[in-house]
Parts: sequence; C-alpha cells; structure tokens
Amino acid sequence: MHHRRTAVLAAVASVLLGTHALAQTDPLHSWNDGAAKKAIVEFVQTTTTQGSSQFVAPEERIATFDQDGTLWVEHPMYTQVTYCFDRVPAVVRAKPELANVEPFKTVLSGNREAIAKLSMDDLLKILAATLTGMSVDEFRAEATKWLDTTRDPRWKRPYTELTYAPMIELLKYLRANGYKTYIVTGGGQDFVRTYAEPVYGIPPEQVVGTAGGTKYGYDKSGKPFLTKEPRLLLNDNDAGKPEGIHLMIGRRPHAAFGNSTGDRQMLEYTKAGDGARLAMLVLHDDAKREYAYGPVLGLPDTKVGTFTPALYDEAKKQGWIVVSMKDDWKRIFSFEPEWE
Amino acid sequence: MHHRRTAVLAAVASVLLGTHALAQTDPLHSWNDGAAKKAIVEFVQTTTTQGSSQFVAPEERIATFDQDGTLWVEHPMYTQVTYCFDRVPAVVRAKPELANVEPFKTVLSGNREAIAKLSMDDLLKILAATLTGMSVDEFRAEATKWLDTTRDPRWKRPYTELTYAPMIELLKYLRANGYKTYIVTGGGQDFVRTYAEPVYGIPPEQVVGTAGGTKYGYDKSGKPFLTKEPRLLLNDNDAGKPEGIHLMIGRRPHAAFGNSTGDRQMLEYTKAGDGARLAMLVLHDDAKREYAYGPVLGLPDTKVGTFTPALYDEAKKQGWIVVSMKDDWKRIFSFEPEWE
Repeated sequence: MHHRRTAVLAAVASVLLGTHALAQTDPLHSWNDGAAKKAIVEFVQTTTTQGSSQFVAPEERIATFDQDGTLWVEHPMYTQVTYCFDRVPAVVRAKPELANVEPFKTVLSGNREAIAKLSMDDLLKILAATLTGMSVDEFRAEATKWLDTTRDPRWKRPYTELTYAPMIELLKYLRANGYKTYIVTGGGQDFVRTYAEPVYGIPPEQVVGTAGGTKYGYDKSGKPFLTKEPRLLLNDNDAGKPEGIHLMIGRRPHAAFGNSTGDRQMLEYTKAGDGARLAMLVLHDDAKREYAYGPVLGLPDTKVGTFTPALYDEAKKQGWIVVSMKDDWKRIFSFEPEWE
Repeated sequence: MHHRRTAVLAAVASVLLGTHALAQTDPLHSWNDGAAKKAIVEFVQTTTTQGSSQFVAPEERIATFDQDGTLWVEHPMYTQVTYCFDRVPAVVRAKPELANVEPFKTVLSGNREAIAKLSMDDLLKILAATLTGMSVDEFRAEATKWLDTTRDPRWKRPYTELTYAPMIELLKYLRANGYKTYIVTGGGQDFVRTYAEPVYGIPPEQVVGTAGGTKYGYDKSGKPFLTKEPRLLLNDNDAGKPEGIHLMIGRRPHAAFGNSTGDRQMLEYTKAGDGARLAMLVLHDDAKREYAYGPVLGLPDTKVGTFTPALYDEAKKQGWIVVSMKDDWKRIFSFEPEWE
C-alpha cells in the first residue's frame, strides 16, 4: 500500500515538475553526467553513424551483459542459489532417503552457521539435486512459481523487480541503436531464460549461461520431452564466457558489461577486437542505496563474483570503464521514482 | 560463358513474357501448386493472422531447417566431409609423422576403393585432425578459402551455389511473416556459420550444429584467442537436434524441415507442441535434375542421412508433409532460370 501511494505521488510530482517530459528526451536519464555515461554515448554514436570510421554493420552489433551484480542484485546470495536451497525440502520429500545424507541434512536443519560452512562440493550437490532430474517444462514451471511468490528480505519485492534502472535504460538504448543484447551469465541458462524476456526484454535465445545437457525421451503416451541432466556442457564463468559466446553467438561482441573477475575474459575478448569496443565494470560502492562489497557472500570456498583490487587495476590499464553505482547512477532500481 | 548467356537470355525472356512480374507476386514461385505448397501457405496464414485461433506471437515464431539434403545438395558426399578429406595433405605437411599413420595414409594414397572402405572411427579421426587444433579465426579463413575456390564436380559451381531455390524462397517467406529461421544441422556449427549469412540470410547466432569445445588462451603478444578442441559438446543429429534446439534456442519450433532419419526427433518434437505446427521432409526423387537416393554415399558404417521406408511411414502417420523434388519443385537450384 505504501509503495503504491509513493508511486502515485511520484507520478503526480513528475507531471507537475515536468521532469517526466525531460526524462523522456534522454534515454539514459538515470545516469549522472560523467565519464561512464559519456563513454557509452560516444561508443554508440561512433559505431552507428553512417560514414564514421568505426561504423559497425547492424548485424555485427552484439552487446553482452553479465547478470548477477551487473543487471540485478547478487547480494547477499545469488538468487538462483537461494532458489536451490529453497527447493531442498521438496527434493527430500520426493526422495526421503536424502534426509539423513549430507549436505541435505545440514540444509534441512536450518542451522545458518553450519550452512555457511558447506563446501563448494556440497553446493554442487545441492545444485545438481535441485536443477536436474526433471523435465525442462517442470523446471520452468517450478522456477516461475518460486520467482512469483518469493520476496527479497531487504526490499520485500520479487527478485525480478531488483533490476538496476540505469542498466535497463542501457539495454534499451543499445537495442534502439540496432544492438542485439545478450545475457552471458555464470548462472543457469534455463533459470535465467524463465524471466529474461519480461524482465530485460531479452528472449531465451539471447541468454547464454552455465548449461547442462538434456536427454530426449518419451512419456507413457509417446509424447517426447527433454529431461535436465547433471552433465555440464558449459561453465559460463571466466574463460567459459568467451567460449560460451563463441558456441552460442559465434561473433565477438562490440560491447561487454560485467562486475567481477568472472567477467574478466569476456571483457578482454571484447576489447581485443578491431575498431571501437566498449568494456564496463559495475562497482558496488553504494552501501546506502544497495551494497558496498568485494567478495560475494553465500558461496563457500570460491572467489566467483568479486571485484578484486587486481581487477580494478586491470580495468584502468585496459581502458575498461568502471561505473560507480554511488556516483554514476541517479537511482538504482526501476521501482524507485525517477526524480530520486 | 555459356551460363552467363543463358542467364541473360532468361532475363530477356522473362521480361518479354511477363513471367518476372508474375513471379514477384508469389513468394513461393518455384513451388508447383500441390499439397506441400498449400500446407505451407495455410500454416503461415493460420499462425500469423491476428484473431486466428492458432495465432502465434511474433517472438515464438521459430522455424528450424536441416541443411544437408534439405537446403543444399548432400550427394554424393556431405560438403564438409569433402572439405575434411581435402584438408588432409595440409595437415600431414604440418605433421609429417602422420603420413604413415592410418587413416591418413589411405587418404593420401588417393585409392578410392580403399577410402570408401574407411570405418566411422577412421572418419572421426580425419574430422578431428582437420577441424580442430587451430584458432577459430584460422579455421574460418581456411574454410572460406576452400569454399571460394572449390567446385562441385557435377555442376562445376561453388558448393554455396547448390542451394535449393524453393527452400530459399521458403526461408524468405517465413522471415517476411515474422519467423526467425534457424539452421539445425548435423554438420559442424563453425563450418556452416562461415557462409550461412550470405548464402541463406541466416546469421551465425542462428546456426545450431554439431559443436566442439574451444579453449581460451593468449598469443605471444598477450592477445586472447580461442582454439578449437576435439571435445564434442553437441552431436546435433537424431535426439541431439531437439537437445541442441533447447540448448541454443530455448523454445520449441513451430515449423521444422528435414530430409532424413537424423531429422526425425526434431520433427516429432516440433509437432508435439500445441497449436499449428508444420513438419516437412524433402524427398530426393529427381534423378534427372538432382539425385534420387536412399542412403547417402561417402559415410561408411552409418545410416545418417537416409530417407528410409520407416521414415516415410512415420511421416504419413504423423502428418508430416513429404515434399517431392520431382513433383513439387518447378526448379531445383537458385542459379537456374525462373521459367525452367
């Protein structure tokens, strides 16, 4: 109720103050003027203006975006990892023998300290048990239901509302200029595909992610279906990102956006192409409006998803643009009023 | 010279007789009137007319095409297999120790009888040696050069000109009606991607094929590149086709086109979806203008690429349309005059 009233007031204020009309004229209106916004606009102009020496043919306009921490919140735990933990009780109900087997026993105990100590190996067992063994249609239905009904504990909103307004504007701005926008995520390809189209305007065929194999078979009535298997085809992190881009897209991106060491090779690969290339890293330095952090919590024994000092140094050296959430973004979330 | 003169005469005749203008009004002008053409037009109308009970939203309009034998000639040997055999001398020059190792020794001997007796295992060794171990850029350059300079022995034309005019019209007709067209081929994904855009109007990101892994690394100057590895990720034949469609597209097609048992599961999977679905098989029954055959030659110990009696029976049972090249197609190749 409170949120709705705020939104109505914001809309009224926006009309009275004329900021709505103003915002419409700038496709990147949630970005403050600064080096990051300037670099984006210059890149788009130089690659899409006929006659420019760095003009890029429309079919070659590919832009790739990491998801967690780049397009939406990844803190304190990747949304998909939360999903997998939440699915454990249902998995154990279906296979009661797992109740006394680790790591399922610990997850069911609800003991946060013990859960935080689970190893990467334990986590992989939980992912395999909760993400495979069902048909792709069953998986899609389960994930969709969970996303519709689960709320982030801090903002009390569905995870799919915790997208960054400036990045949504950037996706639309690039598409309006002929760029094909892709998600290239370390997260599960099937998971992200369940919501990428309504949330980001990115269709399933433009989502590249960590992917397992499927197995074709028939049900009792002879109808064919695909079962998700625990056989990893693509680990779409680190070097897996350019490898995944080659497998799924087959062209080198002209622009790439990330926020962690897992995106380093994707940015390197993008910048190694000829002509104008844009590489950007989102820096989480806004403890008040979102989070300020280095390592991502919730993933044991791993450095996945960290903006390390070494990455910062490489960005400076390679000419990658570092986007400060605190300084470069007028607002963080799409649900926030425009004038905030 | 002869061909050029024929083309000019055809153009003149076309203008004089008014057939050119007539042809323009029918997007499927190389198709004879009959059950196949009727089924295509009805499918497109019923799925794209607003208010139709079987209307398909534009983003869901996916059509998948097998390549060899469906979009271009596969006889007497898959073009890519010819490429691999042609590459063997260069591979042996780079690694002279292979000259006395089978199956390379037999290939180098030029003894056609012995070559025809090579096993599937031998063939896989030849594919691995000629398609992997180089960078993706080197591979693309080699394949492009070969396609530009090699001629089909029967038609004395580049292989890329041996595409079926009626199928090219079908691709364009579907795209003009909002369908996204994909190639889903048992052939190598990287190989087909080198020419699919100019030849079929299908961009690399819409080519799904048999795919190996790549490995990300750096050259001496520190520039990143991808090396093709002999590690199979997707065998895009048979059940591998729906599995590949799920991996690379993530949606079930509304229309699928093939010509062999390797396409059976793709057609089944397509037809198992709700609403109007179109499944078609091209039957090679035109010995005069192209070929009439069952099994494809040149692939030892395998039944890949055959239009078997069992497949014909299944097509009839499942409501798949069988396209007779002899009866349904006015002309076969795009290089033939329109009025032939």
